[in-house]
Amino acid sequence: MSSSDIFIGETIGTAILILLGGGVCAAVTLKASKARNAGWLAIAFGWGFAVMTAVYISGPLSGAHLNPAVTVALAIKSGDWTNVPVYFAGQLLGAMIGATLVWVAYYGQFHAHLTDKEIVGGPGAQATAAKAVEAQEKGAGPVLGIFSTGPEIRNVAQNLATEIIGTVVLILAVLTQGLNDKGNGLGILGGLITAFVVVSIGLSLGGPTGYAINPARDLGPRIVHALLPLPNKGGSDWAYAWIPIVGPLIGGAIAAGIYNVAFA
Amino acid sequence: MSSSDIFIGETIGTAILILLGGGVCAAVTLKASKARNAGWLAIAFGWGFAVMTAVYISGPLSGAHLNPAVTVALAIKSGDWTNVPVYFAGQLLGAMIGATLVWVAYYGQFHAHLTDKEIVGGPGAQATAAKAVEAQEKGAGPVLGIFSTGPEIRNVAQNLATEIIGTVVLILAVLTQGLNDKGNGLGILGGLITAFVVVSIGLSLGGPTGYAINPARDLGPRIVHALLPLPNKGGSDWAYAWIPIVGPLIGGAIAAGIYNVAFA
Amino acid sequence: MSSSDIFIGETIGTAILILLGGGVCAAVTLKASKARNAGWLAIAFGWGFAVMTAVYISGPLSGAHLNPAVTVALAIKSGDWTNVPVYFAGQLLGAMIGATLVWVAYYGQFHAHLTDKEIVGGPGAQATAAKAVEAQEKGAGPVLGIFSTGPEIRNVAQNLATEIIGTVVLILAVLTQGLNDKGNGLGILGGLITAFVVVSIGLSLGGPTGYAINPARDLGPRIVHALLPLPNKGGSDWAYAWIPIVGPLIGGAIAAGIYNVAFA
Amino acid sequence: MSSSDIFIGETIGTAILILLGGGVCAAVTLKASKARNAGWLAIAFGWGFAVMTAVYISGPLSGAHLNPAVTVALAIKSGDWTNVPVYFAGQLLGAMIGATLVWVAYYGQFHAHLTDKEIVGGPGAQATAAKAVEAQEKGAGPVLGIFSTGPEIRNVAQNLATEIIGTVVLILAVLTQGLNDKGNGLGILGGLITAFVVVSIGLSLGGPTGYAINPARDLGPRIVHALLPLPNKGGSDWAYAWIPIVGPLIGGAIAAGIYNVAFA
Repeated sequence: MSSSDIFIGETIGTAILILLGGGVCAAVTLKASKARNAGWLAIAFGWGFAVMTAVYISGPLSGAHLNPAVTVALAIKSGDWTNVPVYFAGQLLGAMIGATLVWVAYYGQFHAHLTDKEIVGGPGAQATAAKAVEAQEKGAGPVLGIFSTGPEIRNVAQNLATEIIGTVVLILAVLTQGLNDKGNGLGILGGLITAFVVVSIGLSLGGPTGYAINPARDLGPRIVHALLPLPNKGGSDWAYAWIPIVGPLIGGAIAAGIYNVAFA
Repeated sequence: MSSSDIFIGETIGTAILILLGGGVCAAVTLKASKARNAGWLAIAFGWGFAVMTAVYISGPLSGAHLNPAVTVALAIKSGDWTNVPVYFAGQLLGAMIGATLVWVAYYGQFHAHLTDKEIVGGPGAQATAAKAVEAQEKGAGPVLGIFSTGPEIRNVAQNLATEIIGTVVLILAVLTQGLNDKGNGLGILGGLITAFVVVSIGLSLGGPTGYAINPARDLGPRIVHALLPLPNKGGSDWAYAWIPIVGPLIGGAIAAGIYNVAFA
Repeated sequence: MSSSDIFIGETIGTAILILLGGGVCAAVTLKASKARNAGWLAIAFGWGFAVMTAVYISGPLSGAHLNPAVTVALAIKSGDWTNVPVYFAGQLLGAMIGATLVWVAYYGQFHAHLTDKEIVGGPGAQATAAKAVEAQEKGAGPVLGIFSTGPEIRNVAQNLATEIIGTVVLILAVLTQGLNDKGNGLGILGGLITAFVVVSIGLSLGGPTGYAINPARDLGPRIVHALLPLPNKGGSDWAYAWIPIVGPLIGGAIAAGIYNVAFA
Repeated sequence: MSSSDIFIGETIGTAILILLGGGVCAAVTLKASKARNAGWLAIAFGWGFAVMTAVYISGPLSGAHLNPAVTVALAIKSGDWTNVPVYFAGQLLGAMIGATLVWVAYYGQFHAHLTDKEIVGGPGAQATAAKAVEAQEKGAGPVLGIFSTGPEIRNVAQNLATEIIGTVVLILAVLTQGLNDKGNGLGILGGLITAFVVVSIGLSLGGPTGYAINPARDLGPRIVHALLPLPNKGGSDWAYAWIPIVGPLIGGAIAAGIYNVAFA
């Protein structure tokens, strides 16, 4: 694969991943969405099929990492770190494009939601500063939650552990898809199976932190949240932002280690 | 493929698509349906599996476009526009047959629903003219929603954008299934994966407009809604009808452009 | 395939189909079931995966018809009616075994449900005769609904039409899985795709009658309902019983006809 | 396969199975989980995809039994019992590791839930001894239910029968995946199909007892529940513990018998 194919593939693929993944969060959260309150199962399947769609579209171009933790794990496995920066760049750019497209697709819904007095409270169309601070302190309020993840209970050790555990499962499932001796040989089915692995992680390990399990998935949209001109959007919870970056990277490294010891 | 196989295949396939797709909307919406209020996840899976069923049945005859946006994108990709009118004709006819079959299958449910005073209001079995006008103004009332799509918030720019974005995702997923250099080579699995892509688009991008992403899917049933002798059915919202035609066609063209630049 | 393999395969396969299909209805309906009120999506997926499980288990023995409408359609397609009675016998016996196993697996739940005064009413543990008559007239009360199908609105023409339409979709999806010229060549994937077709029919066309689309699936369990010593079970609604037999057989024949005209 | 690969594969695979399977129960049950009250469909899909994920990861190492009932059935089928103890050891150890990881991932949620006065009752943060006894008598209280299964209605004969029936379905679906004469030849698709078989058993036969259908899945986490320092956790219901061990083993043996008679 050429560097430009990798960059274009990761940018398109991660944009689609975040468009569809952030999209389901918007669909379930925002006022005046037909899918409002569709529930956690909708979110888990929404993210899983988002991964699947992005993988099959970008696979022929870049191999469809779409996740710095995947890129790091594959680099550890292969020992080849040459294209890692290209992958990272495409992933972050794609994630930002995807989050912006969610905003475009749900433009009216964002506005209706964030200016609804019963939802954002406050004496007028503008939320008070106190409210914004409260949202910041609470971490991922509902609208930030369309962009980035946040914990239900703020606890650095647990939050990190949950992200690490989820990512280990994801990366082990990716690494064992090889066609070698200790691989399961999924081949073209790999995109579908990975999608269901992501549904599984969402259903089973998403409860505490919202399962970033992907640094680009969290950081890119958080930057977009900070930049977009959304009324009453609250803070972007930068205090939490390092956990969904560091946790998945550690998880990817641990999974690569397990793989190299047990499967190679 | 012969022209007659294409026409028959697209007619049968699109009829099944709309029978099952419109069917799930009827099932979830109408009084005296066992699936009433089954929720958005049921709708998203219902439409996805509708696509899958139609694709596998009509694939051997016509290649299973079932969607003018697919036909246009494939014509742009290949440069061959010969059979485009045959595809369009089969798709529109099939969509009208499918919508009519929904009415047959749910005949009693339509009648019970539309003559229920608590549902349609009014002093008697007939809705007042004011009520019909209101339904028309609101766009897709629940019963029109069984046939055609409508926006939660009426905004030409956003509604068009949402339909374009959703269709770009769909068509990119279709175009990259080729067996060539930059294709993912899904082969017979393509019908299943496309189904899940449609579930994904429904879950993630269906909230604002109900994701037509297919001009025939919207226009055919809208014509049938206008023609059927349903009591208190309200208007067919023709003011909105051009958006789910133009948006998907633009989306198909954009996807073909992206494909030709990035993947060819 | 030998006659004995066919008989054993259809008996085992249809028993598993009805055990799992009737099982999900029991799970969602009965008091003291962990899955109570899990909703229509659970029922649709439950029946779909019931088909899938039964197909893969019995496929190698009998080809996994599991449905007299499939057997009839394949006989029309091939012109070979030799084994049709063997298939029918295995299917009916299997359906009765499966329905009996549902009763075993949910034994305590049936008893708790049917002796709950708030559920069955009446001044004591026994429902009044009037109540039983009312249940009979209503058709499929909740407990009969665990065994057999029944319409929400009783209308012979519509009920027949709905069963015919649903079965045409199912049988077309089965017939087009051939490996010949006009077949889609699904091969081993056929069981999975057929499962999702059944989910689709359930979600989209199940609302009015509960989608028997299979004479054995309805008749076998109805006989078992009539025979089992369930307290306050109500009538078995024999007045309706011919519709889910005749409708699916007509649907199978129509589908075979469409196939022979359009696909052969 | 070497004994060490088998042991490592079964340990990793069963750990992932229980991490994801127990995880979805925690996600749906515990306070301060984003997936709280996501419903039975989420549990059924969660366990199914847990199986799928574990099967594809551990398959290349150990063949992915992950269940003593599978190991016993395959030993009966093949007549080779050599590695049975190694499989059992890996399965039990893996199940205990998985259950412990659920506790780590949901650490704060467990604490918040079990110290919530409205949930655990009692005059203070500690549940009274009477409460613990009551929980023990009731069998699987909600928190024990995250670890192990328990019946809605306590009836040894029915509870055993339900576990036997569910396991027979599972094991028949596993045994018929062979590539021999009477096998369906699923090959690499087997992991996905088995996942959906498990979803099916969950939806259809999980209502009465919570479908252990796997001795290691129940015993390992029950031991961990007894050992973990959870406040107000209630008893571990050892009186019931033999049923999800004995039932699945009988079911596996019956399925192997059916297979050897009907399919060999």
